[in-house]
Parts: sequence; C-alpha cells; structure tokens
Amino acid sequence: MRTATMTVDKAYQVAQTDDRLFGSFIEHLGRAVYGGIYQPGHPSADEDGFRRDVLELVRELKIPLIRYPGGNFVSNFFWEDSVGPLENRQPRLDLAWRTLEPNTFGLDEFARWTKKAGADVMMAVNLGTRGIADACNLLEYCNHPSGTKYSDLRRSHGHEEPYHFKLWCLGNEMDGPWQIGRKTMDEYGRISEETAKAMKLIDPTIELVSCGSSFRDMPTFPQWEATTLEHNYDYVDYISLHQYYGNLNQDSSDYLAQSDDMEEFIHTVVSACDFVKAKKRSKKTLHLSFDEWNVWFHSKSEEEDITQNHPWQKAPALLEDQYDFEDALMAGLMMITLLKHADRIKIACLAQLVNVIAPIMTERDGGAWRQTIFYPFYHASRYGRGMVLGTAADAPVHETSTHGEVSDLVSTAVWNQEEETLTVFAVNRNLEEDCRLELDLRSFEKCVPMEKLELAGFGLKEENTASEERVRPQSLTDIRMENGKAETVLKKASWNVLRFHL
Amino acid sequence: MRTATMTVDKAYQVAQTDDRLFGSFIEHLGRAVYGGIYQPGHPSADEDGFRRDVLELVRELKIPLIRYPGGNFVSNFFWEDSVGPLENRQPRLDLAWRTLEPNTFGLDEFARWTKKAGADVMMAVNLGTRGIADACNLLEYCNHPSGTKYSDLRRSHGHEEPYHFKLWCLGNEMDGPWQIGRKTMDEYGRISEETAKAMKLIDPTIELVSCGSSFRDMPTFPQWEATTLEHNYDYVDYISLHQYYGNLNQDSSDYLAQSDDMEEFIHTVVSACDFVKAKKRSKKTLHLSFDEWNVWFHSKSEEEDITQNHPWQKAPALLEDQYDFEDALMAGLMMITLLKHADRIKIACLAQLVNVIAPIMTERDGGAWRQTIFYPFYHASRYGRGMVLGTAADAPVHETSTHGEVSDLVSTAVWNQEEETLTVFAVNRNLEEDCRLELDLRSFEKCVPMEKLELAGFGLKEENTASEERVRPQSLTDIRMENGKAETVLKKASWNVLRFHL
Amino acid sequence: MRTATMTVDKAYQVAQTDDRLFGSFIEHLGRAVYGGIYQPGHPSADEDGFRRDVLELVRELKIPLIRYPGGNFVSNFFWEDSVGPLENRQPRLDLAWRTLEPNTFGLDEFARWTKKAGADVMMAVNLGTRGIADACNLLEYCNHPSGTKYSDLRRSHGHEEPYHFKLWCLGNEMDGPWQIGRKTMDEYGRISEETAKAMKLIDPTIELVSCGSSFRDMPTFPQWEATTLEHNYDYVDYISLHQYYGNLNQDSSDYLAQSDDMEEFIHTVVSACDFVKAKKRSKKTLHLSFDEWNVWFHSKSEEEDITQNHPWQKAPALLEDQYDFEDALMAGLMMITLLKHADRIKIACLAQLVNVIAPIMTERDGGAWRQTIFYPFYHASRYGRGMVLGTAADAPVHETSTHGEVSDLVSTAVWNQEEETLTVFAVNRNLEEDCRLELDLRSFEKCVPMEKLELAGFGLKEENTASEERVRPQSLTDIRMENGKAETVLKKASWNVLRFHL
Repeated sequence: MRTATMTVDKAYQVAQTDDRLFGSFIEHLGRAVYGGIYQPGHPSADEDGFRRDVLELVRELKIPLIRYPGGNFVSNFFWEDSVGPLENRQPRLDLAWRTLEPNTFGLDEFARWTKKAGADVMMAVNLGTRGIADACNLLEYCNHPSGTKYSDLRRSHGHEEPYHFKLWCLGNEMDGPWQIGRKTMDEYGRISEETAKAMKLIDPTIELVSCGSSFRDMPTFPQWEATTLEHNYDYVDYISLHQYYGNLNQDSSDYLAQSDDMEEFIHTVVSACDFVKAKKRSKKTLHLSFDEWNVWFHSKSEEEDITQNHPWQKAPALLEDQYDFEDALMAGLMMITLLKHADRIKIACLAQLVNVIAPIMTERDGGAWRQTIFYPFYHASRYGRGMVLGTAADAPVHETSTHGEVSDLVSTAVWNQEEETLTVFAVNRNLEEDCRLELDLRSFEKCVPMEKLELAGFGLKEENTASEERVRPQSLTDIRMENGKAETVLKKASWNVLRFHL
Repeated sequence: MRTATMTVDKAYQVAQTDDRLFGSFIEHLGRAVYGGIYQPGHPSADEDGFRRDVLELVRELKIPLIRYPGGNFVSNFFWEDSVGPLENRQPRLDLAWRTLEPNTFGLDEFARWTKKAGADVMMAVNLGTRGIADACNLLEYCNHPSGTKYSDLRRSHGHEEPYHFKLWCLGNEMDGPWQIGRKTMDEYGRISEETAKAMKLIDPTIELVSCGSSFRDMPTFPQWEATTLEHNYDYVDYISLHQYYGNLNQDSSDYLAQSDDMEEFIHTVVSACDFVKAKKRSKKTLHLSFDEWNVWFHSKSEEEDITQNHPWQKAPALLEDQYDFEDALMAGLMMITLLKHADRIKIACLAQLVNVIAPIMTERDGGAWRQTIFYPFYHASRYGRGMVLGTAADAPVHETSTHGEVSDLVSTAVWNQEEETLTVFAVNRNLEEDCRLELDLRSFEKCVPMEKLELAGFGLKEENTASEERVRPQSLTDIRMENGKAETVLKKASWNVLRFHL
Repeated sequence: MRTATMTVDKAYQVAQTDDRLFGSFIEHLGRAVYGGIYQPGHPSADEDGFRRDVLELVRELKIPLIRYPGGNFVSNFFWEDSVGPLENRQPRLDLAWRTLEPNTFGLDEFARWTKKAGADVMMAVNLGTRGIADACNLLEYCNHPSGTKYSDLRRSHGHEEPYHFKLWCLGNEMDGPWQIGRKTMDEYGRISEETAKAMKLIDPTIELVSCGSSFRDMPTFPQWEATTLEHNYDYVDYISLHQYYGNLNQDSSDYLAQSDDMEEFIHTVVSACDFVKAKKRSKKTLHLSFDEWNVWFHSKSEEEDITQNHPWQKAPALLEDQYDFEDALMAGLMMITLLKHADRIKIACLAQLVNVIAPIMTERDGGAWRQTIFYPFYHASRYGRGMVLGTAADAPVHETSTHGEVSDLVSTAVWNQEEETLTVFAVNRNLEEDCRLELDLRSFEKCVPMEKLELAGFGLKEENTASEERVRPQSLTDIRMENGKAETVLKKASWNVLRFHL
C-alpha cells in the first residue's frame, strides 16, 4: 500500500473560519420554495405552511446564512410584488427560468422561515432591470426601523421590527449572456458603485458583494474582476465566485481532479482583488464570497426542455440533480478547497439547499431525504469550524486525462480551540488504490483519536433515494496513535473525517 | 421612338414576396388616428367610432400589416395611459410632434380596428424614455394568455384573448437627434440587445426589428448598422430602413432618379448585415424591414409652424402632403425597388396610411378620398404578390442634374404561380420621350396579355382632391404579343402594370 | 500711508448686471426649510407657517431668484412625495445629508413662499436616480397650464395657475463622488443632453443650467466642462460653477487672497465654453451660473458627526457656519469678483440663505438675525445693479504665503443710469496698512459723493450673534472730491461702498 505523510502544526495558522462559509442558497426556482421549504397542506406543514421535515434537515446542516431570492431570478425580481396582503399579490413571469412566480411566498415569508431555520438572510438587489432607487427602497423596507415610506410599508404588513439583513448581493452573474439585463464590465462597475454607495448611506452596517465572473471559463474572466472592482472597490466588501463541476465526460478520475481548477480560480480572483487594491492605494483588503458552488450536470438537458418548450409552469421540477457517490466526493473536495482558503473566503453558499441541485430533496406527498452530497457538507459544517491549519503533505500521485498528474490526497485540518478538537478532512481521489496516511500531530501534545467518519466502499454511481439512503457515512475507530503520530488507511475513493480530542 | 428590350425568364427567381411588403403605418400623429381612422360622431362612424369610409379604402389596399403607434411618438409613449376605462385615461403631452394625445384611442382600440381592417399589428416598444422592464410588461399585456399581472390587466379591460402581436419594433429612429431619448450606437446596441433577449423569453414566437439609420444621409450611416448589430445580432430578426424622397429642387427628372439612391441604400444595409453575420460566425441571415417609405416634402414648413409655434393642439393637420402625379411615379419607383429586393426585404410600410403623408385622406365633415400615390401601391398590393423574377433590361438612358445618366426604365416582374399570372411593373421616368418596350417572355409558353394598367398623360403637378380624382389609372389593351414577345409603348412619365395570363 | 489710484470711465463698459446675480439658495438641508423659512407654531409664523421675521430679512436682501430644492438633496428627490394633501405625504430618507425629510413642506409650499419673498424659483431636476421622463413630468407639473396628467395633478392640489419656473438646473454636482448617482463626464453629457432636449419641447421658454465641476480643484476640472458641453451645448443655456472658501490654515492674509483663485476659475470655465463653441461652430455663447458661492469651513467637522453617527434626524442643525468679520470681507471679495464678470456670469446664488451657511439665522424659539456676511451681499444687491465698468487700478501689493504677491485692493464699479448713481465696491485686504484711494471719475461730469458705507475696524474673528449685531456697516462722509477726483482712505481689512450721485 502506498503511503502519504502529512504534518499538522498548530503554529501554521491560515485563518479562523467564518461561520458563513457554511451558507447555502434558496432561489425562486423549480421546487426550492414551492413544494420545497413551503408547502401548505403537506402533512408536515406548520402553521406558516413551512415543511417541518425540511426544516429539520436544514437545522441538521447548521446553515448560518441563506442567499435569496436568486440567482438569475433576481434580475427581474420586483420585490413589491412579493409582499403585502396575499389577496393583492399577483403572479409574475419569471424570465430567468421561464416559470410562473405565484408570489404567494415572498420576502417577508422568507424572513420568517429563516428565523425558524436559525439562519441569516443574504439578500440580493435587482441590477438587471432596476437601479439605484429600487435597491434603496428594498433596503429601507428591510432594514430601516420606521417612520419612512418603505419602513412603514413593512410595518403595515405586520412586521414591526426591521430585518437587519446584513449581507447584500449587488445583482447576480451580471456578466452572463443569459442574465436578464446583462451588463458590460464598465456598465456593471458603474451601476454597482453608485448603488453600493447609496445603500451604505441608508445602512452603513451592511456588507456588499460585488458580482465576479459567473464561472472561471467565462471569456471575460479575470478582466471582469479587475475592471468592475476598479469602479466599485471603495464601496464593496466581497467579490463573488460561482463554480459548478460535473462528470461530463464519464471520466471519474479527471472529474475529481477539478478541485485543482477551483484552487486556481480562487488564486486568480485573489490576485485580481489585490492588484486593484494596490492600484487604488487602498488599505482595504477585499474578501471572497463563493456564493454558488456544487456539482451540477445531471439535470441539464431535462431542465432545458421545460424551460424552452413548456414554460410558465408553477414550480416545475427543475435542476433536480440526482447525486451519486462520486458527486459526494467532489462536493467534499470543493468543501476542503474552500476551507483551505479561509483567510480570503469568508462566505460560501452550497447551491442550493432544497430540491434544486440540493442536498435535501422532498417528495410531493412524501417525506424529505438526504442526497449523497449531504454528508461532506454536514461534516464540514459540524466539525469544520475553527482555526484552519496549513498542512504539509507528501502524497502519492496519479495520472488523469486532462489534468495530468494530480495528488491522491486533498485535505485540510481545523483546530477548534474552544471545543478542544482537531479535525482532519481528507479525500483519497485515487479510484484504484488505498493509501496509508501517516499524520504528524506532535504540536498537539495530548492528542487522542475520537473517531473516523468515512464515506467509502460504494459504487461511484450509487445514489440515495427517497426510500433508501444507501450512501451514508460510518463511524470507525481505526486510527492508531503512537509518538504523536496518527496512522490510518484512506480507502480508495473515500471521504474521511479524522476527529481528535486535544 | 426609342426602344427598350427586357427579358423575363421564370428560371431567374429572386424570391417569393412576403405579404408584409405591402404594409403601412398609423402613428399617433396629426389626423391619422383622430379624425382619420377614428372619429366618433362622423356619419360614417361605426359602433366603435371607426370611420367606415376609411376602413373601406384600407381594405381596398389589402394592407396585411400596420405599424403602430409610432414613429417618433413611441419614444415617449406610456402604453398604460392608453388602456383601461376611458374615464380614467388622461391626456398626455406628445413630445415628438408637440400635440396633445387625448388617449381616447389606444392600444386596445387599435387592435380592434386592425381586426376590422384585416391587418396585423407591427407593435413598437419605447426605448427612448423607458427600458427592458416596461417593454416586457407591454408584451405580456399584449401576448400572454392569462394568469399574470399584465395579462390579467388586459383581461380586466375586456380583452380575454391575447393579441399575439408577432412583429415588434425595438424603438424608432434611435439615431436621430430629434428623437426623445436618442441613443448612441453603443447605447442602442446594448439596450436593444437586452430588451430583445428578455422579450423573446416571454414570447419566443415574436420577431424583432432593430432600428437602422433614420435615412441614408445620416452622418453615422452605415456604421450605426454595423455597431448596433454587433451587439444585438443574435436576438433580432430584421433591421429597419426608413427613407423619404421629395422634389425639393423643382427638378422632376432628378427627383425621379432618386430610386437609384434607394437601390444603393438597400445594398449597403445588406452589406452591413452580412459583414456582421460573418464577423459573428452566425448562421442566421438578417432580413430588412423598410418600415417607413414614401414621398414627403410638401408639408414640411407648415408643419413646423404648428409644432414650434402652436403646440399642444389635439390632432392638428400635420404632414398632410398633397401629392401630385410625379409623386405617384416616385411612389411607384420606390415600390418597384422594394419588390426587386424581395429576397432580403420582407417587410415594408408605406408611411403612412391616413391623412399623414398618406394615400388616403379624410375630410372632417366629408368623405375619404384617394391621393395620386394610392394607385401604384394599390396595383402592387393587388398584383405584386408572387415570385419576383430578375429582369434583364436594355433601356435608353437620360441625363439628370445630380444623378448623371440614368435608365429611362425601372421595372420588375412578379410571377403568381397560383393565379397563373405574370405582372410587369414599369416606370418610364423619361419626362420627354415615350419608349417602345419589347418584352421577351419565351420561358412562359402560354402567355396571354390581359390588360395594361397605366397612369400617364397627366401634368406632373396634377393632384387629386376630395371632390375630384383627377389622377387615376386606366385599363388599356395595347399589348401586342408575337412569338413569345410582347410589345407595348411606355409613355413618357408613366406608371405601367402589364398583366399576363399564363 | 500708501496710495492706490483708480480710474472709472463710463466708456469702459463690461456689461449690465443681470438681476439674477443676486440670487440665493434654499436646500432641504439642516434648518434651512424646517425651522428656517417654515416653522408653523412659531410666534412670527404667518397663516402658511412661514416665519415673517425671516421673510422680512429676505426681502431686505432683495433676492430675485432662489435655487431649490438642492444641492445634493435633489439627486434622490422624488418630487411626487412633496406634493398633494399633507395627510398622504410620507417621510423619506434624504441620502445626501442622511436626515429625515418629512415632506410637510414641498414644491407647492416653496412656490408660495417665494411669491411672498418676491423671488423667482430656480428649480432642479433629479439626474442622480431618475431620468428624462421624470424630469419632464416635473416640468409639466410646474409649467403646463392644464389639460394633461401632471398639470391637472397640480390643479387638483389647488394650484390652478402654472408656476412658469423659467430656470432649471440639470441635476447638481454630478461629478462629485459624494453625489447619489454620480455620473462620468460622458454619462452626464448624454443624460443632460437628452433631458434638456425633451424639457425644451415641453416648454421652450425655460433656460437650462448644465452642471459644471463641483469646484475648481476637482480632478476632472476642466475636462468635465469641455466633455459635457460637447454633448449638450445645443440644448443648454448656462454652465454652473460652485466654490466655497475658508480660512483653513488660520492665515487670514492668504485666505483673502483666494478671490484671485476665483478669478482664474471663472476664466477657465469661460475658456472651456468658448472652446466648445468654436468646435461646434455654434453661434450661441454660453453664460455662467455661479449658483453656489460663499465661505464654508467652520462647521465641517460637527456636521460630519451628525451625518455619520446620528443620521435620520428631522432638520438637525447642519452647516451652521458662524461667520466672523474676515468672512464678511471674503464674501465681499467674492461678490466683487462676480460683478467684474457680469458679461459672462448672469446668475449667482449665495449659498445658502437661511441657517445653512447663511447670512440669515434663526433661533428656534427666538428671532432671526444677520450674520457678518449679510452686509456685503446686502450692499451689492442694493447698489450693485447697473452697468459694470472696467476699473484701471494701480494699487500697492502685499506678500501671502501661498498666493505670492497680491494686490491690496479688489474693486469694481457699477453705474446705475436710471438712478443716476455710481457705486464703487472695494476691499482693502491688506490686514496691516490703510490705503489712500485716489479715484479718477472725470468721465462723470457732475459726480457728487453721497456716502461711504464701511465695514472696518472689527477684530478679524468678531462675530454677530442672535442677541448682538457687532459687525455692521457704518455710513461715513469722508470722501473728498476735487477736479473730478475723489479721495478717501480704505482702512486696513475693510469693505467699502463709495456711492456717488451723477
């Protein structure tokens, strides 16, 4: 068996994780809202029509932050349509997904739902078909206490207290040709600068996210980042990254190598930010909001048929990727990559949360269940908070078709000082060979293995279903400790969480 | 007598005419609507207040398509003002023509009127003072069946069925300094691109017309065409051309030579389209919408006095060109030029239809009557549908003051396979000399002359009036047929329609 | 004692002063409106809630024109909020000054107040967060007689007659990063061009002011002027200048030398205008609107604390500069500089009028009183109207820290032909030495000294207060006349108004 060695030293500190790294995303898209988190009449629905079975799984994931209401949906979102007495709300055409938005669940309902879910809202303003004044009105509605036109409108709707949403997206994927009201680099730089400036006058406690490129292969990446930030740098706090991966070529080894691309993507965005920082002679360092990430490729063709040929349905099943075991490994690899950059990435949103490319699925007349990708995220959210430590690893490599030689091992370590635990997350993405891991933990003197959580031994295409959760972790005790060194075996194609008490 | 020879061969096919080549245009301008198509209280008014005498003449012209509501008017048009209960509608200042728009006739009334006229609507969105969202709302109002905010608004106004307007103009003459909310090339390219994209998501069955230059002598022509199409090429279906001619220098011979300029204009726009097509590596060929064409010069100074010194009248007489015989020849020349380019020109609108630079005029308390230009259009609309054939002509030439040597003869031929007819349209624009035409029709074996319709023998300045239709065609039989060759005389200054049965 | 000689000859005519040179400014800012001109319940309030004590002082200044409602305020001003029945008006967040705008005093109230004050309104449209259509609607509301949507709205509010506001600002300081909806040069050029064009179609009798640079030290000055005018030159009538000075370095001599900077500023703006005029081959000469000028520096830090840390107050005390004697000298110097350029400067607004960097102050429960800067403006407004004459002066100089050697004397002369008076305004800005002035008036044959008004002999930091007007002018008779020459002494640090009867 091949061997990897790794040193985790408490002196090599990357950064304390921001809780918001474990955020997620609910868009008005498919069955995320209607039939997802909200389904009046469902047996599990509470007095607000919120599904209790879904809420339970959401709480299980300990999601601190949920992005809303889009995504592409936001670029033609008229928030006024979504508030006020239900009998006055009118359905609207959602142009992003070409479905019918009934507006029976809106801004105020979402605020209520997140309260029950224990999460904060990451709100977005529409910079596709609207501008500064509309963004300001929405912010006033949400965050201003009272005594003004829009704050009093909120109060008249029964919401006396402001929501104090702290985090706001300045539009969504504004570089994308698919975006309603797409902007050029300079157009977006300008509108985001002026909107940001005005919004911070209304509420200086908010933080703003500038739209970065929609994904790394956009033709304008990374010039988009540099040009837009040159306009709005002084007024924004984060720049967004979005990325989805998929096993498009039925080449699992090469598929799992894509987390290395994600490394490069993050590196380039950091570079663009710091280039602009220098050019502006600014003292402010911009952070990253990786506010859409996941595996997404299973559902693409079906969803196109609905969008193109059967539009204007209410909450049709869209983007309902059915994930398999290798997707769980990929989600785990992405989560580890995010953690490794906790010094610059302060926000990340698993896209999305329910039904739509989601860890949590619902049956219309049945229950809610966990997809394979649920678990790596669950483990990270439960055990991945704390001080991320740099890991010095020496691991075997394997050859891939388009990524060349890549490391078998992708890993990171998080030291939770309060709970006195150390957690090592590691994926063995070699599909053929197990790997012995020798872990040097000598800087942690009283280190005691607690458990090893493992996802392994499944067929790569194994899926979970509503009735059977085939892919689920098991808790093992096969970590051997000696002389400050821990040793265990990382099985081929495995997700591993090594937990130690300090 | 000089002789022209011409060969019409069924093998040389240009293209089947699109019915929409015989379209026209009603703008909220002058007496086109109020006192034109709509005059409650007039003896001929029907239950909707539509003048029956006008409708009759419109039907006589077999107009398949009518552009609406502008023209320049559209650039500050707020369609919401023009719909709903009459008692709630409010007058607005029309800034294009500086008249008062009473809004008693609006979008829904026009839809009803066109139904009676047997025509389709070519609708326009306001890209002067409005943007994407407003255009989308209008489209939703017109074309979406039901169940959404604006489709239900239409239904609440008593119009249960959607109008399914198929053809939409993305603004009007956006390059013109006179345009309310004029755009630069890049500004228009961007707003039209984003608006077109969003509109096609709402209704993918619509076709969109991008604004070309306002006329050939615009300083930004033809760069405007290339630059704007580079932005919106993927989302639009046609590019517009507008052109008016007039005998401004009292030089009739040179005036009639201007149809050669129109040839050049069309050629250049086609070139610009195909240049962008190649640059975009697109498989789509863009077609042309010549959606404003006519003679216009008689009324310019009077109209300026009203517009500048006596504004805010309700339906004042504006642009009421009184046409003479040479204008009819010019209109005929333009119509022939359009037919010759039936391969690329799919839409053309005689601008306009009633009272405003129009073939049909009304008297306030009297009847409706035909101007001289009525007839060439009438003939083309009646007999010009079918397969346009290339004509190989060898004709005498004459000298003009600014156009140099030009051909006496301008002609085209249309083969209607269904009706088994062949029609040759020909203008002899030599004002001094008749011309013997030898027409080689040997590819049509059983060709029999039916009649020759002719406008000739009038003084060049002869006009029609409400009481007397002086300039009208006569039907002649002076076509001699021998050995597959037809022979007739095209009188000096004449419009000729040679009709054959096959 | 040093001597200055000066010749005032009736043949050397600069220009007749435009009455609007003596304009002022009321912004919805601080206590200018609420607690300033408007305070229902105050003992001096009239039936409209207007303070009579303030009105009296305003009339004393003979203000012909008052700019309204901003200033920075206008860039997020929604005029509709400020009109109509009081019970329907809602407070709005003013983002410019981060105060609460109660909207109990609005557009219609201001029109009524200016009527009582005897002044015209210089209105502004919001080009920060709004555009063409909104500007047009406001103009229609104000100036269109009746029979249209917005003119009838005004009438429904009880204002039958249109206001006929003649002078309109196209936004405010649109180059300033602090401006809500700031524009780049090209953005502002374009929006102002199109807005101006549309507005003049509604009412061609209006005059429009294009925004120049916010002050001379803006980084884009004077390119801003050239670029924006290249867009809108044909549609605008004036370009604005704004400038405030302050004794920031506690160097009074250098402070007073800043009127020389103002000279340069005016000269450069004139140059930019005439450069564009030549480039456009235009026959129109653009004039200058110096629509914000004053001393402003005392209150800056206090105001920032309220704006930044205690926002959303209703009418907090903001920008309440407490002026001293040297500020009065500076205001006098600025006023003289404006008069000297009466050939190009047709409009000037002392910014502002009441409580906010203002000549007139109010006590909440007390009276209204005059600041030191009241008097130079008062003298100019009273005696400075007529034909400005070029003065040939030869005066001593003194050295300053950053302006080098500057003249002791800054002066101008105004010949009022109707009233048969000649007035010489002169500041001796030498703080150490009196100066004997020899004034050659031989072109005015029957010249008789009437009085010398003087502000002199006060400590430079002497202020007025609500209870005591320490700095006020006295009327002297120490002008000696002989052989067409007048002689008097201009005391060190003095403002002097020499009045002659002709």
